[in-house]
Amino acid sequence: MLFERIESAGLAHYSYLVGSGHEALVIDPRRDCQVYVDRAAREGMRITHILETHRNEDYAIGSVELAARTGAEIWHADAQYDYAYGNPVADGRRWTVGDVGVRALACPGHTEGMMAYLLEDADGHPWAVCTGDALFAGSVGRVDLLGADRIPEMAGRLYDSITERLLPLGDGVIVLPAHGPGSACGASIAERPWTTLGIERRHNPALQVASREEFIERVGQALPFPPYFYTMERMNVEGPPPLPRLPSPPMLGPQAFADGARAGLVLDVRDALAFQAAHVPGALSIWSERLGRYGGWFLPYDRPLFLVAGDDAREDAVRSLARMGYDRLGGVLSGGMEAWQAAGLESDSLMNITVPQLETLLARGGEPWILDLRTHEEVERDGTVPGARHVPLTSLSERRDEVPREENVFAFCGTGVRSTIAASLLARWGWPRLTVVMGGMEGWKAAGAPRTGQVAQGAG
Amino acid sequence: MLFERIESAGLAHYSYLVGSGHEALVIDPRRDCQVYVDRAAREGMRITHILETHRNEDYAIGSVELAARTGAEIWHADAQYDYAYGNPVADGRRWTVGDVGVRALACPGHTEGMMAYLLEDADGHPWAVCTGDALFAGSVGRVDLLGADRIPEMAGRLYDSITERLLPLGDGVIVLPAHGPGSACGASIAERPWTTLGIERRHNPALQVASREEFIERVGQALPFPPYFYTMERMNVEGPPPLPRLPSPPMLGPQAFADGARAGLVLDVRDALAFQAAHVPGALSIWSERLGRYGGWFLPYDRPLFLVAGDDAREDAVRSLARMGYDRLGGVLSGGMEAWQAAGLESDSLMNITVPQLETLLARGGEPWILDLRTHEEVERDGTVPGARHVPLTSLSERRDEVPREENVFAFCGTGVRSTIAASLLARWGWPRLTVVMGGMEGWKAAGAPRTGQVAQGAG
Amino acid sequence: MLFERIESAGLAHYSYLVGSGHEALVIDPRRDCQVYVDRAAREGMRITHILETHRNEDYAIGSVELAARTGAEIWHADAQYDYAYGNPVADGRRWTVGDVGVRALACPGHTEGMMAYLLEDADGHPWAVCTGDALFAGSVGRVDLLGADRIPEMAGRLYDSITERLLPLGDGVIVLPAHGPGSACGASIAERPWTTLGIERRHNPALQVASREEFIERVGQALPFPPYFYTMERMNVEGPPPLPRLPSPPMLGPQAFADGARAGLVLDVRDALAFQAAHVPGALSIWSERLGRYGGWFLPYDRPLFLVAGDDAREDAVRSLARMGYDRLGGVLSGGMEAWQAAGLESDSLMNITVPQLETLLARGGEPWILDLRTHEEVERDGTVPGARHVPLTSLSERRDEVPREENVFAFCGTGVRSTIAASLLARWGWPRLTVVMGGMEGWKAAGAPRTGQVAQGAG
Amino acid sequence: MLFERIESAGLAHYSYLVGSGHEALVIDPRRDCQVYVDRAAREGMRITHILETHRNEDYAIGSVELAARTGAEIWHADAQYDYAYGNPVADGRRWTVGDVGVRALACPGHTEGMMAYLLEDADGHPWAVCTGDALFAGSVGRVDLLGADRIPEMAGRLYDSITERLLPLGDGVIVLPAHGPGSACGASIAERPWTTLGIERRHNPALQVASREEFIERVGQALPFPPYFYTMERMNVEGPPPLPRLPSPPMLGPQAFADGARAGLVLDVRDALAFQAAHVPGALSIWSERLGRYGGWFLPYDRPLFLVAGDDAREDAVRSLARMGYDRLGGVLSGGMEAWQAAGLESDSLMNITVPQLETLLARGGEPWILDLRTHEEVERDGTVPGARHVPLTSLSERRDEVPREENVFAFCGTGVRSTIAASLLARWGWPRLTVVMGGMEGWKAAGAPRTGQVAQGAG
Repeated sequence: MLFERIESAGLAHYSYLVGSGHEALVIDPRRDCQVYVDRAAREGMRITHILETHRNEDYAIGSVELAARTGAEIWHADAQYDYAYGNPVADGRRWTVGDVGVRALACPGHTEGMMAYLLEDADGHPWAVCTGDALFAGSVGRVDLLGADRIPEMAGRLYDSITERLLPLGDGVIVLPAHGPGSACGASIAERPWTTLGIERRHNPALQVASREEFIERVGQALPFPPYFYTMERMNVEGPPPLPRLPSPPMLGPQAFADGARAGLVLDVRDALAFQAAHVPGALSIWSERLGRYGGWFLPYDRPLFLVAGDDAREDAVRSLARMGYDRLGGVLSGGMEAWQAAGLESDSLMNITVPQLETLLARGGEPWILDLRTHEEVERDGTVPGARHVPLTSLSERRDEVPREENVFAFCGTGVRSTIAASLLARWGWPRLTVVMGGMEGWKAAGAPRTGQVAQGAG
Repeated sequence: MLFERIESAGLAHYSYLVGSGHEALVIDPRRDCQVYVDRAAREGMRITHILETHRNEDYAIGSVELAARTGAEIWHADAQYDYAYGNPVADGRRWTVGDVGVRALACPGHTEGMMAYLLEDADGHPWAVCTGDALFAGSVGRVDLLGADRIPEMAGRLYDSITERLLPLGDGVIVLPAHGPGSACGASIAERPWTTLGIERRHNPALQVASREEFIERVGQALPFPPYFYTMERMNVEGPPPLPRLPSPPMLGPQAFADGARAGLVLDVRDALAFQAAHVPGALSIWSERLGRYGGWFLPYDRPLFLVAGDDAREDAVRSLARMGYDRLGGVLSGGMEAWQAAGLESDSLMNITVPQLETLLARGGEPWILDLRTHEEVERDGTVPGARHVPLTSLSERRDEVPREENVFAFCGTGVRSTIAASLLARWGWPRLTVVMGGMEGWKAAGAPRTGQVAQGAG
Repeated sequence: MLFERIESAGLAHYSYLVGSGHEALVIDPRRDCQVYVDRAAREGMRITHILETHRNEDYAIGSVELAARTGAEIWHADAQYDYAYGNPVADGRRWTVGDVGVRALACPGHTEGMMAYLLEDADGHPWAVCTGDALFAGSVGRVDLLGADRIPEMAGRLYDSITERLLPLGDGVIVLPAHGPGSACGASIAERPWTTLGIERRHNPALQVASREEFIERVGQALPFPPYFYTMERMNVEGPPPLPRLPSPPMLGPQAFADGARAGLVLDVRDALAFQAAHVPGALSIWSERLGRYGGWFLPYDRPLFLVAGDDAREDAVRSLARMGYDRLGGVLSGGMEAWQAAGLESDSLMNITVPQLETLLARGGEPWILDLRTHEEVERDGTVPGARHVPLTSLSERRDEVPREENVFAFCGTGVRSTIAASLLARWGWPRLTVVMGGMEGWKAAGAPRTGQVAQGAG
Repeated sequence: MLFERIESAGLAHYSYLVGSGHEALVIDPRRDCQVYVDRAAREGMRITHILETHRNEDYAIGSVELAARTGAEIWHADAQYDYAYGNPVADGRRWTVGDVGVRALACPGHTEGMMAYLLEDADGHPWAVCTGDALFAGSVGRVDLLGADRIPEMAGRLYDSITERLLPLGDGVIVLPAHGPGSACGASIAERPWTTLGIERRHNPALQVASREEFIERVGQALPFPPYFYTMERMNVEGPPPLPRLPSPPMLGPQAFADGARAGLVLDVRDALAFQAAHVPGALSIWSERLGRYGGWFLPYDRPLFLVAGDDAREDAVRSLARMGYDRLGGVLSGGMEAWQAAGLESDSLMNITVPQLETLLARGGEPWILDLRTHEEVERDGTVPGARHVPLTSLSERRDEVPREENVFAFCGTGVRSTIAASLLARWGWPRLTVVMGGMEGWKAAGAPRTGQVAQGAG
């Protein structure tokens, strides 16, 4: 029996390859899908079926591309949409590959028509269940995608799905969710690398409730909604454009890069420190390891992206972008910032400050204007630096007017990554004096510096 | 949290790497152990602890080598032995790496002092348990290692370990055994790639018993005991010799190979068909993918091995051999059998016959002397070819006199691999006429050919 | 400066990647061309130009595919053809990438319009010359492609190209040919991995001539012409079909493979011994490492190929086939011959015999019907086995009637590879008794067995 | 025939693997030597001989380690030293591997007993020559290693070696030097990736001389002498310590790293920009890609090194250090500077300024104290920034008093790498205000900013 979880870092997306005999199937394939073909072939298997748990909103599904490469049948859930491809799954449908059976189990709540897929072993025993976005390790799927007004309804339906369809399968059944920690599709997914219905029943905070009503209250809230979700939803019903191989954006010398970038956006995926030291004027900073999480908030689909990336991160960045449907890549800066500077071109930098320095500044009575970019949950849990204003990074665009232009703004977050994203955005919008607090709340706590639970709202 | 199962194919050995924060630990490391160091380093972790579940008998443990590379502490179970290294574990001992806790749980039965290791997540919840050789997917550990007379005692203790210490942890706890399907340490391990206490409680055949007595009866039997177990047992108490890197046996031209091999043994790890077509006279055939399973039965430690291997299998074969402590490698035949033949040297071949041909032969009233080399379990389950004599491969050495020298012996097994091993052994011992039945019982069943449950014993 | 020779094994094809600054160019790219893009990108370079030395006949050129991936300009030679793409090169044209200059140098002879490309270093000094199929290490390009009647003319023009355009560049200039040893584009290419004009001037046998006439006489002969050359020639003028990635033929279980193969051809790329031991009835044997050399002689373009290949050779075989434009791949036999036999299906085998056995047979007065499949050159150089009949492998199809059906035919070649190809062909054509002589002439010579220079022609 | 040049980046060291039949030899192996074993094995060859061109001074030779892995014979040149291993080569000695011959050719000048090795092809023709440190592309070996007083003598002997022993081999012979561009063993090695005696005869600047005297005058100068050369010289006569595999320094959390580093030196191999943005206080900056060139100038052998490195550069840095004999590695900072800052620990940074900013500063009449760290040759060739003081980086330690402590020192070099090394050194020595000019002279020239040929010497 072949069983592999294929993880797409960044998006925290999990897909599954299941095979037996000479056949295999894939659940929720990603767009750069040769990996499934290769691993199945290594085991002597042909991919015959592709199953989707739901119309995904956070990444471009690879079903159509994978079917083109293998001839596999596609089965999609959420049949209420007007899919341009494949066959709709009905509750209870069963497939087999070799000795292994797979059964669809309708689990609405996250979306209308979500399907879980129960895997049976060669003896027909339920063995594991692909829960899609219904149930995660330590969390459940968000229920706000159909609009705020339907949140209670969808939360209730999710409760029913979990308690009536999943948990009765038995504590011992292994849970195979569509996402791991860090996904935008569920809040606070736990770090447990593998989990079971028994573990979730006993420890998942969302399930420690006395009633359906309490569940609805606990999970029935709106979460941040990255704008690229709209594009993904449309793409995943139409079928994303073919991706015969990863794009190979051309390497461009500094001048060619500068010329090209005028019609596009410079995206700098180096780490925060490198960006702070020097970057192409106007560049947006999103560290490659956070592209899956933050790219969809800030990147446009209608203009080409021009990348600044270290040699080691270039391919990863291109792959992450492709998974979110960002295929318009104008080029990569050959030789990086060093070549840019060696071409005598102007670059910008950001100030930074360490936690001990900020502590000293505060202790001496300085009154820095600190912009805390963390989420509400983080601020509630850990408090913040005395005097800081709180604007979550994902709301910064709408609420930017709360940030004064005349101050040196000290951007503050968990460790410094989001601060650097925010500082790069503010710089693009014209804020002149920006300082990133490196180490962020992690460093602040480690240093034992004073915190306050009260958070002043932005200056507005 | 870092969690990886590292599998050693062939031996069907599973080891585990668990980490959190900047620290990691390894349970039952294999001897070629750089993989743990590299994967931990990739996550920014240092390996600080090495835990052994028991004094292993089927492979050379990598604890000492891994400790030399990392400075990690070694903790070994089975403290009744006189270990030359590390610290003995006592029941209940607890370690932590980062946020993760690990607790020793005495589970005797397979050996006297076997320890399971319970993994707790960051919240202190039991989450998974490394069961060593106590509990496998669909099977339990063998209980005959301390001798036939102690089988009932050890089986009873294993029953107590499973029912009193493991199952009470809860159905949802994930089971992390030391072996997968194909291991010599348990009979009939299931193909489920992951399992849980709940799945095992409900479906493990050994646990579907009404009483301790029934369990003892069911699992209390002697299994084949590969001779290399003795060497492994000794090595694993002394600490296997250092293995700073995999051996690189020299490539030898045909004449140099022939000269060297006189003082050693030629081991041909190519597949069965290639061996049948042509091989160095006197060579022993064990296909590289079965080296872990059969090598320990037939290979000596006191003479150098000379390998015939395809380019793609050479390194795998060397790795498999090193895992069983076979470090004396005299050389590899450069250019393979083609070079041997192009040097004008004599080679031998084996006859083969397909299932349809054998069927025809029988249908026409031929009376071939068929030697069935499968296990008792296989013969009981599937029957055999009418008229076949049954001598399990692992008993062939002692029972060879049951095989007549004057007959053309048709070697028969599951698919043709063991038949080829047996034919190569018989050829070494002087049997002149040998034919391998390709496809074996799998082909026989697929062709729907007649089978009999009655098995005539060898001619002796 | 970036300079890499990219070799395509099998075809013995050399292409070149040359770069400087942020730009690179490729000379004679192969069809699976991502390698150029990746290596250039690793150096921070964009491929801006693709140069072809001539309308190739032995492989599918990758210019169009590479241009699609990079936007590079294509420049092709042999402008007399009606190309569907790119720009024609004129003698003397010069390009630059970074500091490096490249100059076209018309060198007709192999084809009408062949261009060499002279590479200059940053100081403008001639440094190396891409000689295409004009000049190889130890050989020169074949001059028979335009027909037997034009051989003297083309040989003369090649002499002029070499002596008037190449050699005057100076002994120290490095020679970068389009092929290495084993290519069908030149006879007896030497094994020197790198060479220079000076080495060739002094040691190339074709250039050790007293006059143009002597050169014409020496090189002016017709060489074997693989039928696939016709397809390649057409493809390379039209531009081969896009190849966005290597084909991933589906893995098929034995029955599905057998069903599919009825409408196609089974191609077995395992080595000769494995094929001899067992193969799918009707399969054609061409070892994967010889696909580039012999595939084009025997494989059809109009029917799908079904592959039998070891796991390690599958991708190589697919790549080799793609390079010759064989894109119709119906599937791969999952699990190989072992799975085929385990499905209870019939397989065929070939007899083999070793050199010492054949020697003994002859010594004892046996009169085996030996079919020597080597080239005329080989037979002239080394003689043959007493009594053997000579039919070169590449003429076997036309001359098969010279081989008696009623005899046990002993196929003989250099080492056993071509014999196995021939035996698989004869078996397809209905010859009932075939034996391969393993080791071939190499083994025969190594054994010091008697040879004769007189070769009886086939029985016809 | 097997022929490969194996390049060790950073050190710009070239070694050669030459094989034929079943045997191969290596010339000047590096210390991490498994690469030779693996590549030879891939071709079915055993390494039987190891040849050294001379007692190397710039890297730790791998002969002893490689011999331990293969059983090969070692042959060393410079027999005047008291070697602890191997056999001394005499002029004219000849070896063969398979069909290939190798002949020693005494070429003193760089050292007393340097040997070139002439490679002959299967026909006995001289084909290529390993020139060691006698002759490079566009340069010749340094002649100052035996002391300033012997420079004229050694230069003369080198002239004789080149003109009497190498050039007479013929223009067409390929030159295989021991170093490529960037090595400390010869000045201004050219970028030609391959070269010949003919090219060097015509274009090597050192050989464009009218007489032996002119040659002596041109090449007879003392070059910078990295202190680690002393250690390498001693090690290469004793045989470097065994290196069974690359060191795996432990990953350390920030606090463990800080604790450990107190007894060692923190070496930060990230690129210049990242270092400038934040680094561990007291860290020495040497970018991993320049470790081979600058590490030996500034790193101690008697204290452990603690590394700060990106994930992608860690292994490269460890490898580069091992090649220079730096085996004492205390640990690697897990999680890099981000983890350091997230632990609330203090970090330092360096100011930087771009070329356009510096230009503006100068244009406005600012008088920055600019420290030009380039070599004399670079300053002579390109001039410098008006007002800059010149102290080559490799002299900075002795001449540091010329740099005023009270000024903001603007470190200036070719692109910014050496400036950052220098700034990190000065910071360690207590200089309080340091600014790195990014882009350096390359950017300065690209921007067309004014330069002066007159260079003020340091303030001393």
